[in-house]
Amino acid sequence: VRVGRGALDLLVDDLAARPPGRLLAVVSDSRVGPIHAEPLFRRLRRRGLPALLLTFPAGERHKTRATKSRLEDELLAVGAGRDTAIVAVGGGVTGDLAGFLAATWHRGIPVVQVPTSLLAMVDAALGGKTAVNLPGGKNLVGAFHQPWGLYADPAVLGTLPAREWLGGLSEVVKTAAIADERLFEWLEAFASALRGREPAAVDRAVTACLRIKASIVRLDPLEQGRRAILNFGHTVAHALETVTRYRIPHGRAVALGMAVEVRLAMESTGFPAEHALRLHQLLETLQGPLRWPAGADAAEVARTARRDKKTREGRARYALPVRLGKMAPGSDVTVTLSDSRLMRAIRSLSSGQVPASRV
Amino acid sequence: VRVGRGALDLLVDDLAARPPGRLLAVVSDSRVGPIHAEPLFRRLRRRGLPALLLTFPAGERHKTRATKSRLEDELLAVGAGRDTAIVAVGGGVTGDLAGFLAATWHRGIPVVQVPTSLLAMVDAALGGKTAVNLPGGKNLVGAFHQPWGLYADPAVLGTLPAREWLGGLSEVVKTAAIADERLFEWLEAFASALRGREPAAVDRAVTACLRIKASIVRLDPLEQGRRAILNFGHTVAHALETVTRYRIPHGRAVALGMAVEVRLAMESTGFPAEHALRLHQLLETLQGPLRWPAGADAAEVARTARRDKKTREGRARYALPVRLGKMAPGSDVTVTLSDSRLMRAIRSLSSGQVPASRV
Repeated sequence: VRVGRGALDLLVDDLAARPPGRLLAVVSDSRVGPIHAEPLFRRLRRRGLPALLLTFPAGERHKTRATKSRLEDELLAVGAGRDTAIVAVGGGVTGDLAGFLAATWHRGIPVVQVPTSLLAMVDAALGGKTAVNLPGGKNLVGAFHQPWGLYADPAVLGTLPAREWLGGLSEVVKTAAIADERLFEWLEAFASALRGREPAAVDRAVTACLRIKASIVRLDPLEQGRRAILNFGHTVAHALETVTRYRIPHGRAVALGMAVEVRLAMESTGFPAEHALRLHQLLETLQGPLRWPAGADAAEVARTARRDKKTREGRARYALPVRLGKMAPGSDVTVTLSDSRLMRAIRSLSSGQVPASRV
Repeated sequence: VRVGRGALDLLVDDLAARPPGRLLAVVSDSRVGPIHAEPLFRRLRRRGLPALLLTFPAGERHKTRATKSRLEDELLAVGAGRDTAIVAVGGGVTGDLAGFLAATWHRGIPVVQVPTSLLAMVDAALGGKTAVNLPGGKNLVGAFHQPWGLYADPAVLGTLPAREWLGGLSEVVKTAAIADERLFEWLEAFASALRGREPAAVDRAVTACLRIKASIVRLDPLEQGRRAILNFGHTVAHALETVTRYRIPHGRAVALGMAVEVRLAMESTGFPAEHALRLHQLLETLQGPLRWPAGADAAEVARTARRDKKTREGRARYALPVRLGKMAPGSDVTVTLSDSRLMRAIRSLSSGQVPASRV
């Protein structure tokens, strides 16, 4: 893992010094491709490395089995064998899709993750989770496939659209909320610096989040237990994205998901009301008002949440902190809750209530 | 791994005693389903286990991404979550397809392999290789996914069509040819008993092959080196199947593949001519004359072989023994050969020549 300004230069040097494959297939989407993947592709070619550029249409709606098949057909057409390596340049969608492509091409070839969105940099690109979506749910088909390397250069974040930047801050907040109360306090203090993408604040947030995620993933690479704490907010977020057919960006869905799930935490893990209020306020400071989308029916979201990968015995499961920066100890960190409790929490948020503070 | 008559009873007991999933999805094809999967499915239901039966059209031509997608859609429709287990009942196609389905459903759920063909029993079901075919090549998309359990009951082989029975004997011969000269001698002595499916001979062959394969796979589960010896005959076999669009059964293709590749071995590894003749004769005793299919152009087979997963640096690779029962030592057990050498070997076989004996 290489983090910091200049990581992309290191990437080119590393690929030239010890290439992970005889052919480097750079995979990117139609939005990031022209900005970051094409320049990288040209640099690799100038260094004499056999490289190839594959792109697919941008957007979570294209993270599908059909897109993966099309990329496979393109690899086959150029004769890409087991001695190929994938270089995934893009946000979470590209990392998931290109990672899954690498996981199954000839039963597994190396993938180099080059995240270009804040969300991918602090969360998605590390940890080996890869997947595509099904019409009925997110990330339902995929594999664990640890990257050969991860190169996170915050300099690329300058080109990120504002909406994606703010969405990515959701995963930063989540990381602090589950693992590091001091980081959470720092986020509260530096919220406007982060909104404004001040380099020093951005670098610190990215480095802190990557360090936390790496320590969690190292202990439980296959998510057999404790790693599930990273899913705080995500049971609701994934269901919301599915129900709205990915019209809501992932980062926004995670913010709404945490706002709902922290209400569940207040009821079921004793999460302090004043902490819930702080979380709610930090999310609104960073992202603007947390408005539940009008078309997302609470009952339908609850039904969809039951199809989530975390489902056990037909009931949705949630990874809920016990207070800011702290999850329950042990390896069984998720709780089962009924549809009606989830629907109540969604209705509380969508009616505009904030968590009551006891302070 | 449970081998022997009665293994299917043990399977039902084991699934009842410690179920690998809350829902057992029995996957089979349209030919084996009615004979073996449906009775098993009914037994599981009678034992009170939540089970489900999914079938797909029989045949290598259906081992595709499209068939896998359809099975995924069916799993989604019944709400199958991460706490599902797949029970693969069938031949090599079913084991590969259902195994790959399990490898990627919710990033990996358990699979129980229940091989019902000789080929699957002695080779395909053990070792964790799963895959689907692409139009341009066999097994190009897949994963390593070790089974939760393997239940091999030779009693089910009684219902196997004659052509498949004889084809399966190819993998038995291959196993002996790469690893056990005494087993090869035993096969020569008991060839007619095996052709006639005499139970004692069948049981001995299945047990011996599974033991050899298990010992090879255990040392190199991800085929990073020595496990590649299992691919003897398979570079040519896969290319031949691709070129003929799977009209030639896999076992038959492996017999023809070994007949070609042993000619390459004579030239490149010093494989003794008299051993090549014995291999050729044993294959013909078991399978009838080794006629190269008229429509399979040698140049096209050579081109296709270069797209095989074993390809390195654009040239086809072959796993060739140095004599009967013996491969070269070490972990780099494959050799690179030019298209023209392969085409010469194919033409030698298709012109009806047998390897010249020096005896």
